[in-house]
Amino acid sequence: MSSPVEGPSVITCRAAVAWGPGKPLVLEEVQVDPPKAMEIRIKVVCTSLCRSDVTQWESMAQPDLFPRIFGHEASGIVESVGEGVSEFEVGDHVLTLFIGECTRCKQCVSGKSNMCQVLGLERKGVMHSDQKTRFSIKGKPVYHYCAVSSFSEYTVVHSGCAVKISATAPMEKICLLSCGAAAGLGAAWKVADISEGSTVVIFGLGSVGLSVAQGAKLRGAHRIIGVDTNPEKCEKGKSFGITDFINPNDHDEPIQQVVKRMTDGGADYAFECIGDTSMISAALQSCCDGWGLTVTLGVPKSKPEVSAHYALLLSGRTLKGSLLGGWKPKTELPQLVDKYLQKGIEIDALVSHNLPFEDINTAFNLMREGKCLRCVIHMPKSS
Amino acid sequence: MSSPVEGPSVITCRAAVAWGPGKPLVLEEVQVDPPKAMEIRIKVVCTSLCRSDVTQWESMAQPDLFPRIFGHEASGIVESVGEGVSEFEVGDHVLTLFIGECTRCKQCVSGKSNMCQVLGLERKGVMHSDQKTRFSIKGKPVYHYCAVSSFSEYTVVHSGCAVKISATAPMEKICLLSCGAAAGLGAAWKVADISEGSTVVIFGLGSVGLSVAQGAKLRGAHRIIGVDTNPEKCEKGKSFGITDFINPNDHDEPIQQVVKRMTDGGADYAFECIGDTSMISAALQSCCDGWGLTVTLGVPKSKPEVSAHYALLLSGRTLKGSLLGGWKPKTELPQLVDKYLQKGIEIDALVSHNLPFEDINTAFNLMREGKCLRCVIHMPKSS
Repeated sequence: MSSPVEGPSVITCRAAVAWGPGKPLVLEEVQVDPPKAMEIRIKVVCTSLCRSDVTQWESMAQPDLFPRIFGHEASGIVESVGEGVSEFEVGDHVLTLFIGECTRCKQCVSGKSNMCQVLGLERKGVMHSDQKTRFSIKGKPVYHYCAVSSFSEYTVVHSGCAVKISATAPMEKICLLSCGAAAGLGAAWKVADISEGSTVVIFGLGSVGLSVAQGAKLRGAHRIIGVDTNPEKCEKGKSFGITDFINPNDHDEPIQQVVKRMTDGGADYAFECIGDTSMISAALQSCCDGWGLTVTLGVPKSKPEVSAHYALLLSGRTLKGSLLGGWKPKTELPQLVDKYLQKGIEIDALVSHNLPFEDINTAFNLMREGKCLRCVIHMPKSS
Repeated sequence: MSSPVEGPSVITCRAAVAWGPGKPLVLEEVQVDPPKAMEIRIKVVCTSLCRSDVTQWESMAQPDLFPRIFGHEASGIVESVGEGVSEFEVGDHVLTLFIGECTRCKQCVSGKSNMCQVLGLERKGVMHSDQKTRFSIKGKPVYHYCAVSSFSEYTVVHSGCAVKISATAPMEKICLLSCGAAAGLGAAWKVADISEGSTVVIFGLGSVGLSVAQGAKLRGAHRIIGVDTNPEKCEKGKSFGITDFINPNDHDEPIQQVVKRMTDGGADYAFECIGDTSMISAALQSCCDGWGLTVTLGVPKSKPEVSAHYALLLSGRTLKGSLLGGWKPKTELPQLVDKYLQKGIEIDALVSHNLPFEDINTAFNLMREGKCLRCVIHMPKSS
């Protein structure tokens, strides 16, 4: 498809295109431009579906950004590289990064942030560098999502928005470390820095919440309370370290009261992994006075305002947020992949469904209905 | 007034009694009970007026807690001690503590909290131990405030709600270390743990905000931006370390935009010292992505709900609260007094007015009108 003499050319391949908010995806033939300077083109191998793909797809907030290709949690193989790229070679195995790392900006060099000022969260459906798209259908631009757009057989990303990983890592599993699983582990380890013997409460036992549980367990937390309205999460939760399961539907009183009673006044750490801002106040109230820390990870489906009574803070609580669990994506995600290969972390059990690309709408439906953890979408082997 | 044989008896003295929310205080003759077990009775020497005395006095939320004696920032001398008190002797110089330290509860022994579970913030106008008052007027109970009630010539507090200090410390100055000045210094040192070379923005340059500025300066902050609508705070601020002054009335754009421009994307630390929950969002927005920390210190005059857009948190900001700057009051406040005596911290310049007890309503008016920093009220020398 690419000529070594002339450089890479346009690829025509299939992508799952969303034509409007909430409209079923259509597998379309799209044209994928060659990578520009400092960009790479990736053959997507596996891409898992994250709740925020669905949230953004359903959102009516950016109607002008359709047609659009979603997907931001993926593994793949470098197909071609643009001018100036020395970091990647054709054939490298990579994870895509929905927040990149330029390694040079104030945030990147700080050593305490993953909020790259150059390659941070892209919200306008275009590439960071030239504010244009690399996808088109018969000349009409198709918008990106988070500068990744992995629901396509091929995609173009900035070389700062991908990271080389071990070629021995199973692509159909480690794609989860591109977002959800990493977010949960990082929230537990880097953001909260959970200490041994502590008490933890986790609101929402999806892939992110279960990964927080795993992170807490590996840190030696004494008690890990999982809160979820789906009773099936009880057993699943236990395998990830949950010691106590609370289904809010089984209680007449506010969930924070239940947690406070179970924990002698409140947990040391609370994690909001639902994506419901109204739960953040409940999470804060579930923490103890003095040092209770609430970490919010979710991207809300509605109501973007977080609110809480000031006295919750004045009595010594902390509210903290993070994206991708605070991991510096290029520097640190490969270490997580290695840790997985050494069986230091569990990822496989977070994959509830494996689906061929053709069934991507099934994955969207499962996620909307809360009937899956991670659905991994397998791209065709040859295309 | 007390007989060593029979033990201390009731004292009749003058107190500034509030008969209803917002009603001018009246100097009344009150009866002050002897200290019960583990309590001490203190002859108040100086008491400064804190904004939260005024806020609570104006509040319509607890109409049943009148008549009431406010005041919680005071220095005094132990007049008598109750049964079981071995820590204090008659004649000891003390600071009153509006949050006490029992030294035994989960919070006290944690080493990371000042939110004592036994002697924490008392909100019902009574003593912690028996839920009764030690003040009365002709048999009718007069309510306490924060279990201190220092607007009285004598007051009774739990022995855990006072701390012995150096007898050489000037009572008319170090009373400020009982609340406001300590709160600001602690917010800078213990809560935010400001690092050298950092950028700080402080909303509200009252005694608390100026103390934060002093704390930041002593930590070697590179830039300390003060925000206040009172232009007179510019000069005062400079003497406490403010390097840049912003009067929001001089700007057409939101103050956070001004701060972000001045600081290349946001300050490292922001402090809300106004007691206005709606400023907390502005403070968060004035902090940088990645590691920006907002500390809220103020007790709001209205609107107890803090709210902020979730994306401010997700992009790596932290919101943290504290009471009394996180100081463990018994363990740590005496060290602050010593630091003052060694000229390590400035307190004197926070005292804008010295008034006799008779003029306490003047102090309330000055505070309401924003025309003072700290008004120190001097109790009569002999009574």
